[in-house]
Amino acid sequence: VPAAYSLVTVNGRDYRRPSRPTVVMTIDGCQPAYLDDAMARGLMPRLSAMLAGEGAYHLGRGVMPSLTNPNNVSIVTGTSPAVHGIAGNHFRAPDGSEVQLTDPAHLRAPTILAEMQRVGVRVLAVTAKEKLRRLLADGDVPAISAEYAHEQGLPGLGIDDVPAVVGRPNPKIYDWDASHYAMEIGLAVHQHLLQRDGQGLELLYVSTTDFVQHKEAPGEPMADRFYRRFDEMIGAYLDAGFVLGFTADHGMSAKQEADGSPRVIYLEDVLDGLGIREYHVVLPITDPYVLHHGALGSFAWVYLPAADRERARAAFAALDGVEEVYPREEAAVIFEHPADRIGDLSVGSDARTALGKAQAKHDLSNVESGLRSHGGRHEQIVPIVVSHRLSARYAAWHEAGAQSRDLFDFVLNGVAQ
Amino acid sequence: VPAAYSLVTVNGRDYRRPSRPTVVMTIDGCQPAYLDDAMARGLMPRLSAMLAGEGAYHLGRGVMPSLTNPNNVSIVTGTSPAVHGIAGNHFRAPDGSEVQLTDPAHLRAPTILAEMQRVGVRVLAVTAKEKLRRLLADGDVPAISAEYAHEQGLPGLGIDDVPAVVGRPNPKIYDWDASHYAMEIGLAVHQHLLQRDGQGLELLYVSTTDFVQHKEAPGEPMADRFYRRFDEMIGAYLDAGFVLGFTADHGMSAKQEADGSPRVIYLEDVLDGLGIREYHVVLPITDPYVLHHGALGSFAWVYLPAADRERARAAFAALDGVEEVYPREEAAVIFEHPADRIGDLSVGSDARTALGKAQAKHDLSNVESGLRSHGGRHEQIVPIVVSHRLSARYAAWHEAGAQSRDLFDFVLNGVAQ
Repeated sequence: VPAAYSLVTVNGRDYRRPSRPTVVMTIDGCQPAYLDDAMARGLMPRLSAMLAGEGAYHLGRGVMPSLTNPNNVSIVTGTSPAVHGIAGNHFRAPDGSEVQLTDPAHLRAPTILAEMQRVGVRVLAVTAKEKLRRLLADGDVPAISAEYAHEQGLPGLGIDDVPAVVGRPNPKIYDWDASHYAMEIGLAVHQHLLQRDGQGLELLYVSTTDFVQHKEAPGEPMADRFYRRFDEMIGAYLDAGFVLGFTADHGMSAKQEADGSPRVIYLEDVLDGLGIREYHVVLPITDPYVLHHGALGSFAWVYLPAADRERARAAFAALDGVEEVYPREEAAVIFEHPADRIGDLSVGSDARTALGKAQAKHDLSNVESGLRSHGGRHEQIVPIVVSHRLSARYAAWHEAGAQSRDLFDFVLNGVAQ
Repeated sequence: VPAAYSLVTVNGRDYRRPSRPTVVMTIDGCQPAYLDDAMARGLMPRLSAMLAGEGAYHLGRGVMPSLTNPNNVSIVTGTSPAVHGIAGNHFRAPDGSEVQLTDPAHLRAPTILAEMQRVGVRVLAVTAKEKLRRLLADGDVPAISAEYAHEQGLPGLGIDDVPAVVGRPNPKIYDWDASHYAMEIGLAVHQHLLQRDGQGLELLYVSTTDFVQHKEAPGEPMADRFYRRFDEMIGAYLDAGFVLGFTADHGMSAKQEADGSPRVIYLEDVLDGLGIREYHVVLPITDPYVLHHGALGSFAWVYLPAADRERARAAFAALDGVEEVYPREEAAVIFEHPADRIGDLSVGSDARTALGKAQAKHDLSNVESGLRSHGGRHEQIVPIVVSHRLSARYAAWHEAGAQSRDLFDFVLNGVAQ
């Protein structure tokens, strides 16, 4: 068996070692409408040409809740939150405290990157936001964030000064091009290694930030700038000989009243109205980047005494804007969630509605310009794009609706390597 | 390669040819609570012993809507309605008429049974209800229903009089043991062939009817009789040397008001109230067996002019009892449905609520004793049970939450054959 075709098994799936440089990108908050709109207006000529050629773009599904950490981890492990353990950006720890799910100690499954690295494949993970970096670095994967690229070297690859390799300093995390900088790092490190060692990266993962998508709908100026520059980066990767696959961690919906103000159901206020005194509402969208969404998304966990659960469930379910409400055991099966890390109730809201704790606990000044957020079913729909011709089996699977967590399978096993 | 290990590819998956007689059963309406309750009270000693030994039982998911035809076809094809085309028991044909999805001309993918038969594996499909027989027979698979066993022979297997082989006449379709008769047919035909030819069945599919589950909750007398007899049949199959897997096509929930009367939202009445004049509500649960549920389930398709869709969507979504509402394109991705066979809107209701057309169009006298039905997310949770030890990879997959359409994969590839 030639080395290129030897298989690496990760979480029950076999992946071929890449024989060509291969990159998987997760474009944070890339609602398919951004691509459709930008291509329709000719802003993405490289993507359009790729799709007119061997490439393919179909819609697929991410995991629930439609949030960054659960989806990035599902993509890099090729499995579900029930297996890898990351069902939110944030969760309630067994001691009752709220904790960011950023520590790899919470990971219950190895990543494809880690297992490839273990058998000698040259891998790299680049993320725009620091919050994901430690999870992606699990298993000694070289990993760097655009946010802290000025402080973090890549000692595993013998690179100290990453901005010097890129050729420009890293932007700030709320700059429009923080995401593109993450893409630039990946390509620049590849080319640097190629020149230095005669061997570039073999498998690269790039994850971006959705500040732009939270702030602007398809067709608005900063969104246009984002997708134009993304298209240039797609072209640069293809020109460098990469097999490329990209998806989104989640879509993005305007969660607003007709007057443009945020449309939010405050679950603690509902529970107070029922006279329920003991409860804990956890918003798994919570992360350090509150300028995006004010911690208001379309998914919530509610912890409360068994005696109050059915009453709370019925009250939530009756609200206009709330869609599904499940007790823990149902939610674990329906969403493929780890039962020990979710609430007594899981609550999902519709495309137009966000869920909050209590009105007094959210600073809406950050989202005055219009709340755009995600977390629910409606933002579970994501683009799944592959640059090269898929085998017949994979092409049929792609067309019939794959999941974003199948993307490494597509680029490593579905494309003739 | 020994014949037993040669692979048969069906809809993108490879299946090993069975080397031991193998049966997959779909127990119609088998909400997991029926098994849990019956085992807790000692009514299912053979199942309990199997699970205490090599067997395993975990919860998993069927496809949406949680109805008989979409799920049986997903199980026997190993794929989704987007691929096989059967998204309801019933649908709206391109000419606008409502049509039962029972004609194999509607199938867009071959079944595992048909592909196995094509390479010489001895297969049989048995169903309690005639409505499924033609779909299961697609590709020249010998197929028979308990309902019409007195009229249908199995000429492909050289058997004219099936009740004579079973040793008793077939019950009526609304008898409590119509399902067990389907199980009896499978085993009796196997033993008859073994005796006559020295070669029994190699791969058998048995699908039952949920009349009992529609009528009685776990622990009620007819339900107890059903599960006791099912347990005897599990034992009989194991004693005959079968590898056995079973699942359900869907669960079952009481859709009732506090006073026991049916809890139904009539979608046409809602549309009338909005002043929308042109619409077509299709209930995909509709089938010839109206005594079960009066065509009242938790899923509906609504066809209406584009100009009225958003207004109707918002009105449905605001109703207490309605959960998800999706436009066609979203529904196709989220539910893995064929976009050309579903409504402009897909509507799902909660565990306690059914959806109807107009009040005047449903005969509630059939469900006066209490409406128990299915079709929504809450009835998507099904047991997935395998009789023999699974390989480590399959055991992990089983535990983390598989789908019922993976069951042939489990018994053929996951069990050491």
